[in-house]
Amino acid sequence: MQKERSMPRLNSAFAGLAANYLFSEIAARVRAFRSENPQKTVISLGIGDVSRPLVPAVLEALHKATDEMGSAESFRGYGPEQGYAFLRRAILDHDFRPRGVTLDEDEVFISDGAKSDVGNFQDLFSPDAVIAVTDPVYPVYVDSNAMSGRCGTYAGGKWSRIIYLPCTAENGFEPDLPERRPDVIYLCSPNNPTGTVLSKSALRRWVDYARRNGSLIMFDAAYESFITDPDQPRSIYEIEGADEVAVEFRSFSKTAGFTGLRCAYAVVPKKLKGTADDGGEMSLHDMWLRRQTTKYNGCPYVVQRAAEAVFSTAGQAQIAHVLDIYRGTAAMMRRRLGRMGLTAFGGIHSPYVWLQTPGGMKSWEFFDLLLNKAGVVCTPGAGFGASGEHYVRMTAFNTPENTLAALDRLTAVL
Amino acid sequence: MQKERSMPRLNSAFAGLAANYLFSEIAARVRAFRSENPQKTVISLGIGDVSRPLVPAVLEALHKATDEMGSAESFRGYGPEQGYAFLRRAILDHDFRPRGVTLDEDEVFISDGAKSDVGNFQDLFSPDAVIAVTDPVYPVYVDSNAMSGRCGTYAGGKWSRIIYLPCTAENGFEPDLPERRPDVIYLCSPNNPTGTVLSKSALRRWVDYARRNGSLIMFDAAYESFITDPDQPRSIYEIEGADEVAVEFRSFSKTAGFTGLRCAYAVVPKKLKGTADDGGEMSLHDMWLRRQTTKYNGCPYVVQRAAEAVFSTAGQAQIAHVLDIYRGTAAMMRRRLGRMGLTAFGGIHSPYVWLQTPGGMKSWEFFDLLLNKAGVVCTPGAGFGASGEHYVRMTAFNTPENTLAALDRLTAVL
Repeated sequence: MQKERSMPRLNSAFAGLAANYLFSEIAARVRAFRSENPQKTVISLGIGDVSRPLVPAVLEALHKATDEMGSAESFRGYGPEQGYAFLRRAILDHDFRPRGVTLDEDEVFISDGAKSDVGNFQDLFSPDAVIAVTDPVYPVYVDSNAMSGRCGTYAGGKWSRIIYLPCTAENGFEPDLPERRPDVIYLCSPNNPTGTVLSKSALRRWVDYARRNGSLIMFDAAYESFITDPDQPRSIYEIEGADEVAVEFRSFSKTAGFTGLRCAYAVVPKKLKGTADDGGEMSLHDMWLRRQTTKYNGCPYVVQRAAEAVFSTAGQAQIAHVLDIYRGTAAMMRRRLGRMGLTAFGGIHSPYVWLQTPGGMKSWEFFDLLLNKAGVVCTPGAGFGASGEHYVRMTAFNTPENTLAALDRLTAVL
Repeated sequence: MQKERSMPRLNSAFAGLAANYLFSEIAARVRAFRSENPQKTVISLGIGDVSRPLVPAVLEALHKATDEMGSAESFRGYGPEQGYAFLRRAILDHDFRPRGVTLDEDEVFISDGAKSDVGNFQDLFSPDAVIAVTDPVYPVYVDSNAMSGRCGTYAGGKWSRIIYLPCTAENGFEPDLPERRPDVIYLCSPNNPTGTVLSKSALRRWVDYARRNGSLIMFDAAYESFITDPDQPRSIYEIEGADEVAVEFRSFSKTAGFTGLRCAYAVVPKKLKGTADDGGEMSLHDMWLRRQTTKYNGCPYVVQRAAEAVFSTAGQAQIAHVLDIYRGTAAMMRRRLGRMGLTAFGGIHSPYVWLQTPGGMKSWEFFDLLLNKAGVVCTPGAGFGASGEHYVRMTAFNTPENTLAALDRLTAVL
């Protein structure tokens, strides 16, 4: 018997990955609380998932497309990996043209999710590329790069090769420009987790920086549908020159409750360029097209028809109604938290409220207090990065009734 | 104005990617033929896509799940990235247990496609890992590795770091064991493009080789539902010890016509191990779980319910009927091609017939002959690799009537 046989050589970067304990740690603490307090109910303001059902226009489109798949004449097999023209056109007509943004149809790539797109897009970066992220940060930006060995080593909650851009109350959650040049900058607005929005002038500062320094901006606009102020930018392409430096990620998840249905899109303008090791120019659009046609087979036809229905007159009215419910819940949260003497950010153009812990409490300490005294679950800000310490995230996705009940409980214990 | 600004550093491996002209070249030649011969009809035996509609049991499940998504009580948002338990259980109960294969539920990962899974799985390999593929080959195995810079340089139709294992009539389409040890071996059975099947003894030889040499087998079983002989292995796990060396990829695409609906799964046993650069042991199961939870958000709930319905009694009877139609078409193709004095392989446990060109004609030459003389489209074997020269691939996915008409035309001109 051969004892010491060789084994396939695997990607060592995975071994260096920090375990992401945030949500499993929350689940463990909630489980412990429940088992010690079986008579008490727990209300979660921690969930990042929608709770309202799909709207009628979307359901109708799903049923209709399903019927089409049942007859040989209208059956659809493999579709274009980049998505059907009917959906790409609807996106341009509704999400961009009314805001003065002109894009070509083939600059829009339909997919199964913004998380997939953001995670997969780093396939296109050099192993040596330097990454900048805001802190706190949506963990996928960092983890997907760490898996490709692009982040260096992990110690003390930070990766050695990542540039962290702190976002706190002190700088109004608007990150300072980095001191050294990153190849890639991840921006998320409205922000997860802080719920704050980058204004047009803030975004222009970043686009100008990227143009001057030859950086690429990965702009995550998954929550743009929560923006109500017409002066706030909903797309980075509302800033002149952004199509030379930015990719934009959008999703139907929060816009139309597609978290379980899965549809999103990435905008990759043809003007975007980068360099190969030999200095040769490379087109990000061509690279993404090649990546998607090689490693992806497109979003389901029935789902793309459902997404198209979001843009119908009925669909628009119906999702506006749902969004108003979430927005109302967020506004109510902010009001009530303020009345308790707490300081809260976000929650205006976002389903997320970013609450400063009272008296300088640590995130997890405050989490435990809310759970144990009030049976209310939030998300400790420290789980999103060092600058998230002394904050917790609360979401407006639970029902208005449950959220109100949770706030009543908080009022009683704080 | 700054003229020479720096640019983001991108993945140079994309610059070295060979353009995959196969299907676009076919499309261009067909277009030219049509425009020169507007009065003639073209029949395609080139398509790798199904043509029969979804079966009633699947449609019913899609409608039912859509209705569930329309009420708050039964609405489903984010599901587990690895897939719902109901589907993972159904897969174990129907695809594995009856063949004596025992797997844990969490060794099955549901996804949107075998192409995605096969393409993404190489995220887990070391940049230095050596890859072996059969020749001819499904291009995704090679291209996805080439994108990660694992294949060396491309010249004369071959990558310098890839081990090619020729499969031709001479070796009965059963590749010889490699002369030097690969970290990863891609096997596809029933094979795309040759339509041939690896017997149990052939597969055992590979599993034993992988165990002796510490190689990982990427086993693509996307066409297993076409196997009718109960003695032919449908899963690599029917071979003892395979769960220590093999990942298996399966799909609902060809089994149940899901090419436009998108559902597949990968089996990643917990016994699979590999090494990090420092010699430390790594678990492929844990790595894939981490990869999928970080970069993927799960297959749509409605699609997973549709896939579950494939395993119902009605679903099984209905897909068996559809598969019999394709199988009948393939058998008819083989019979008719044989009667013309041609030599054809595959097409028995596969929708693909691998036809030797007559008189040593080149693949593309024969392609042109069929197109120009008969208005019939096939796929030149040379497009799948050097050992595909002097073959063309024909598929059984067109209707029996069209396929018969195409064969009549071939009889008239050959």
